[in-house]
Amino acid sequence: MEENSHSLRHSPPFPPAILLLSPSAISVKAMASSSSLSLSQALLRPTPLSSSHCPSLRVSPSLRPSPPTAPLSLRRRAAPVRASVPLKTVEKATSDIALVEKSVNTIRFLAIDAVEKANSGHPGLPMGCAPMGHVLYDEAMKYNPKNPKWFNRDRFVLSAGHGCMLQYALLHLAGFDSVKEEDLRQFRQWGSRTPGHPENFETPGVEVTTGPLGQGIGNAVGLALAEKHLAARFNKPDNEIVDHYTYVILGDGCQMEGIANEACSLAGHWGLGKLIAFYDDNHISIDGNTEIAFTESVDSRFEGLGWHVIWVKNGNNGYDDIRAAIEEAKSVKDKPTLIKVTTTIGYGSPNKANSYSVHGSALGAKEVDATRQNLGWPYEPFHVPEDVKKHWSRHIPEGAALEAEWNIKFAEYEKKYKEEAAELKSIINGELPAGWEKALPTYTPESPADATRNLSQQNLNALAKVLPGLLGGSADLASSNMTLLKMFGDFQKDTPAERNVRFGVREHGMGAICNGIALHSPALIPYCATFFVFTDYMRGAIRLSALSEAGVIYVMTHDSIGLGEDGPTHQPIEHLASFRAMPNILMLRPADGNETAGAYKVAVLNRKRPSILALSRQKLPNLPGSSIEGVEKGGYTISDNSTGNKPDVILIGTGSELEIAAKAAEDLRKEGKTVRVVSLVSWELFDEQSEAYKESVLPAAVSARVSIEAGSTFGWEKIVGSKGKAIGIDHFGASAPAGKIYKEFGITKEAVIAAAKELI
Amino acid sequence: MEENSHSLRHSPPFPPAILLLSPSAISVKAMASSSSLSLSQALLRPTPLSSSHCPSLRVSPSLRPSPPTAPLSLRRRAAPVRASVPLKTVEKATSDIALVEKSVNTIRFLAIDAVEKANSGHPGLPMGCAPMGHVLYDEAMKYNPKNPKWFNRDRFVLSAGHGCMLQYALLHLAGFDSVKEEDLRQFRQWGSRTPGHPENFETPGVEVTTGPLGQGIGNAVGLALAEKHLAARFNKPDNEIVDHYTYVILGDGCQMEGIANEACSLAGHWGLGKLIAFYDDNHISIDGNTEIAFTESVDSRFEGLGWHVIWVKNGNNGYDDIRAAIEEAKSVKDKPTLIKVTTTIGYGSPNKANSYSVHGSALGAKEVDATRQNLGWPYEPFHVPEDVKKHWSRHIPEGAALEAEWNIKFAEYEKKYKEEAAELKSIINGELPAGWEKALPTYTPESPADATRNLSQQNLNALAKVLPGLLGGSADLASSNMTLLKMFGDFQKDTPAERNVRFGVREHGMGAICNGIALHSPALIPYCATFFVFTDYMRGAIRLSALSEAGVIYVMTHDSIGLGEDGPTHQPIEHLASFRAMPNILMLRPADGNETAGAYKVAVLNRKRPSILALSRQKLPNLPGSSIEGVEKGGYTISDNSTGNKPDVILIGTGSELEIAAKAAEDLRKEGKTVRVVSLVSWELFDEQSEAYKESVLPAAVSARVSIEAGSTFGWEKIVGSKGKAIGIDHFGASAPAGKIYKEFGITKEAVIAAAKELI
Repeated sequence: MEENSHSLRHSPPFPPAILLLSPSAISVKAMASSSSLSLSQALLRPTPLSSSHCPSLRVSPSLRPSPPTAPLSLRRRAAPVRASVPLKTVEKATSDIALVEKSVNTIRFLAIDAVEKANSGHPGLPMGCAPMGHVLYDEAMKYNPKNPKWFNRDRFVLSAGHGCMLQYALLHLAGFDSVKEEDLRQFRQWGSRTPGHPENFETPGVEVTTGPLGQGIGNAVGLALAEKHLAARFNKPDNEIVDHYTYVILGDGCQMEGIANEACSLAGHWGLGKLIAFYDDNHISIDGNTEIAFTESVDSRFEGLGWHVIWVKNGNNGYDDIRAAIEEAKSVKDKPTLIKVTTTIGYGSPNKANSYSVHGSALGAKEVDATRQNLGWPYEPFHVPEDVKKHWSRHIPEGAALEAEWNIKFAEYEKKYKEEAAELKSIINGELPAGWEKALPTYTPESPADATRNLSQQNLNALAKVLPGLLGGSADLASSNMTLLKMFGDFQKDTPAERNVRFGVREHGMGAICNGIALHSPALIPYCATFFVFTDYMRGAIRLSALSEAGVIYVMTHDSIGLGEDGPTHQPIEHLASFRAMPNILMLRPADGNETAGAYKVAVLNRKRPSILALSRQKLPNLPGSSIEGVEKGGYTISDNSTGNKPDVILIGTGSELEIAAKAAEDLRKEGKTVRVVSLVSWELFDEQSEAYKESVLPAAVSARVSIEAGSTFGWEKIVGSKGKAIGIDHFGASAPAGKIYKEFGITKEAVIAAAKELI
Repeated sequence: MEENSHSLRHSPPFPPAILLLSPSAISVKAMASSSSLSLSQALLRPTPLSSSHCPSLRVSPSLRPSPPTAPLSLRRRAAPVRASVPLKTVEKATSDIALVEKSVNTIRFLAIDAVEKANSGHPGLPMGCAPMGHVLYDEAMKYNPKNPKWFNRDRFVLSAGHGCMLQYALLHLAGFDSVKEEDLRQFRQWGSRTPGHPENFETPGVEVTTGPLGQGIGNAVGLALAEKHLAARFNKPDNEIVDHYTYVILGDGCQMEGIANEACSLAGHWGLGKLIAFYDDNHISIDGNTEIAFTESVDSRFEGLGWHVIWVKNGNNGYDDIRAAIEEAKSVKDKPTLIKVTTTIGYGSPNKANSYSVHGSALGAKEVDATRQNLGWPYEPFHVPEDVKKHWSRHIPEGAALEAEWNIKFAEYEKKYKEEAAELKSIINGELPAGWEKALPTYTPESPADATRNLSQQNLNALAKVLPGLLGGSADLASSNMTLLKMFGDFQKDTPAERNVRFGVREHGMGAICNGIALHSPALIPYCATFFVFTDYMRGAIRLSALSEAGVIYVMTHDSIGLGEDGPTHQPIEHLASFRAMPNILMLRPADGNETAGAYKVAVLNRKRPSILALSRQKLPNLPGSSIEGVEKGGYTISDNSTGNKPDVILIGTGSELEIAAKAAEDLRKEGKTVRVVSLVSWELFDEQSEAYKESVLPAAVSARVSIEAGSTFGWEKIVGSKGKAIGIDHFGASAPAGKIYKEFGITKEAVIAAAKELI
């Protein structure tokens, strides 16, 4: 834990040292962009009449790809009709197009070669999506390869993460230091920066960690939310300092996942106009043609979700259509856009294109040769032709120029809007305001008993005043989870500067969106909430918080049978254990006011490790001895009447059961026993303490240990030892008033006392 | 475990002893049904012009409900226009309608009174959905109250499970023994049959366990799939022995959940024409008006998903519209139907209707009185007026008659189609064919090494030949999970008799659908598959398998870092621990061929407890000493060179690491040590063995114990004790070839030997 440190260490210094380029360098980028986009000004609407405008007909025969050779019966739609259209600058276009095709084939072969060398990976998507990838990274997106963390960059998410060689090839061409040729050659090898799925913590230039399908589109919604929110808070009529797009590529697999529908429903509801999603409509998933399991109309669904939908029928070489679609998407400012791009998976492979066999396996030497023949690619593996290299080389100076330009803009902003600039800067750099933790409320044993969910709300509202990056909400349980920030309104389509986010009943989407928010800017601190038991609905996203080092705060209330009448469907039993077993996550179960404040202190400081706060529905007293400092150590003694570190018995509790342990200790002490009561609020933090500290709390010589927790005893042997006793619940709960269930299940003071007496 | 028992004990005997009624009793039901449905023959299409046909205008003023009094600005749509329409049988309709209204108000007040008495629960939904509930249970559905398990009954699922008082009230009126007045009075109390959410294992008449939103609609898709499958397999042109509808009520909350979209996409794909879902469109969720988070067009989305959509604009008293919608839904045979019914939550409550405050809390004495006034309800709490009671009383004889009629039909079927009848009977009664387990393959150490996922496929294919109820598939990973049954084709819209189910990339929906299949008939044995790590996507459904005693078999392959290059997003770490902590589920991790067969034996026999099989991607040798019988005990010795139950050290492994333990033992024995190797394939089964047996495997006196498992060590202290050593992985995985990762993470023979030597 980064205790007592307010500077978060995973963000680049601000402003980064950059190369200041002359204005002419900037204009080159502008010209390059506008010239490539000027090829098609006509906006393409998805009607059956608008055939694809395919410049590739002008490409020389040797470069022209052969049509896919998979049986036509497998293809859901007929091959797109090709028609030439008048181009304004034919000469330029011809050479441009040849170069674009060459660049696209470079991407394809980098993917083919890397997968072949690793003999592992997914060549199909990169081969099919290379055209849209090229247009995005070479034409549409703004970024600075030498500072992948430049704040105002466009964000790109490959939701279909298995196709990561597409992204690695693009990062390589664009000049990112993270993906050199050597890295491509080390694809999927131990210690490489090119793992089997995109991982933000391994590869600068990768925004989020994807692979588990549907997560990436959820993250993208979070990134776009963050942009919309920050733009609304900080932009001025004379200075739009926050201004970027979020692009995403998702496939059929992502589209089938429920999480994607959840996130996209919210994106439509919020009107995230700067979210542009490319749907790689290739009709193939691992099990074969999507006909076998996926025949819904994605277009209708997305229109129902409030998106603008465009269909690019020829994604294989309809570059102008892709460009036009992006322009159209940008022109629709009040809705996110789905660009359905019909592609051929494994495009260019004569025998494997348009089949599942190209999805997730190397092509094999023979088919690689055949594909080289087919696409007219005479180069050795991993080769980037000189003209392609030269073409892409401009992104390094242009990126630097873009950032320099923005830095000038920020300097102007700072001059004029000092306060806002400081706040935005802190969000960008991950700096928490000095002394923020003083805002945390403190409690004494005389403070009124309260549910930790209510104490949590006191903390959230106290923190919202001092943490400019704190925002979040609940999955339709705000009034139960107690998550509303009273000083703010709702983040909505027309009020995006507000900080209460209404996620609806969409737990999984909520988690993925929060991951996107957390990874947008280092000091954006998203929190989200539901009943603890419904972490089951969002575990995929929570695990990715942990893996991708997204410091999301999970506010999980109704954390045990203590919720009472709602019954076993709503009562968590195994959930504490299940998260204690998960790497890189903090599972915190505070017992009262001070511990809840401590849990928030820990959660806010841990920007690279998510925290889960398990909070009670029921009222709990403020216990003598509880403290913020104790929570920071994960486990600590709250009371003890022994001397010499040798109590007769140690009673250990967490959360709502710490009170029971404390009461049992009182009774035992009256009978003359020496009893220590330990709060084990976070096992992970306790594990990280020194051996000496741990021995001071749980001395090895004292084997008489009793734990009590209203949840599974699984894992407690580690704490109580084979001679101790763990009181808990190893079956499902029941529907009844909470007190009755506690009694019937034996989660009582009497049970602790009886167990202790057996051991002493 | 129901070892060696082929008769499953939770199904009623077949055929149940029933009261044979005269044909006239049967015709009463038929007449009653047709007369109530004849009130409206005109089918209602969801157009703006078709206003509601509201017979309640004819009700006397004292009974006429006042309009909802919540501010109009909160209502998404204007109140439905009321217009009288010519009715063919006005005299009859008038009295019918008065009685219907009275019955509907009875339902409302039973819910109000029960929630009030418990001072806990959700009155809003039952008050709003009482009209559709009445039409369903009093008019549309066929069931036998005295045999809730009668096979050919219509199934009803309350996906919006929090509204369970609706279902309890209906079961009570219909004459189910499970919900007497006393049970209503015990709503949400300890030991009652009326828990806080519907639980199939507590309340006969409740088909599945709901509450966690979106699960119920997924279950309903599974129930409808089961009907379509069994009908296709067993129905004959002259005898449609399988023939029922599946009805479901879902609310805004369910609609927002991704799992619902997944399941409904499949329902549309499969063309489940006998699935009829009522969407309680009341615009209110816990956080307030759905405007704050849910503004998508549900209609468009469902049309996109391939459903037939009908809108009943006046769900508060548009009985004829509800009836007409059901008729229309039944007439559409190739698509499931969504009937969007616009209702007022808490209908009848003058001050709380149409607001979130009526969703999840008791009305309070004052508002209960006001509602009684408003709806003209002079009765004491829990009273069912005599005429209502009389009206509903016909369901007991009619239900018995329906079942008797079906039994006659079955007798005819049995006479003509002996073989099919026997098979269907076994599915209905939960009887596994005698000697089925002889089909399980066996292996010797000489059998070729193979991945347990491949061995799993051998088992599935062997079992498919002898278990008529086995069906299932994968979430788009059939060729990786190895789940295809080679003797069958795909279950699809036009080939529903087949048994390979293609779930697409919809893990959560898949789990919920399998729960529905399992709970349709006792010997339907659904299995479903994905990578083990993606249990994170379906944990909500898996937990409900465990809670609701649905014996689903989860075939989870790629169960560790052994999957290699796909990297940490795909490598389970904490998953074994997370399921070992979950109640009523069997977590099995077989090590080779015999253990895989043993795992399937256990999984098939456990019809009231789900099983998760964690299976390897990589090849594993067949180990000397492994056995089916060993697996049935959960843990057992596979080799030992000690005597007197006192080995120098015990090495404990599971799955792919058992081989490593065995190899380490060989080396240690060469050095003269006595070593026992234990396979701990299922902790749950081992826990259930006698103390003597457990002592014979893991003697308390031997504290030198080393475990090895390529996953979290969390929980292993219980097995190895505080003096033992657990070798595992307590951090995320990595992308590289599997062998390299094993070595780098220290999951090796050398590590086991070193640890053993430290302890001996």
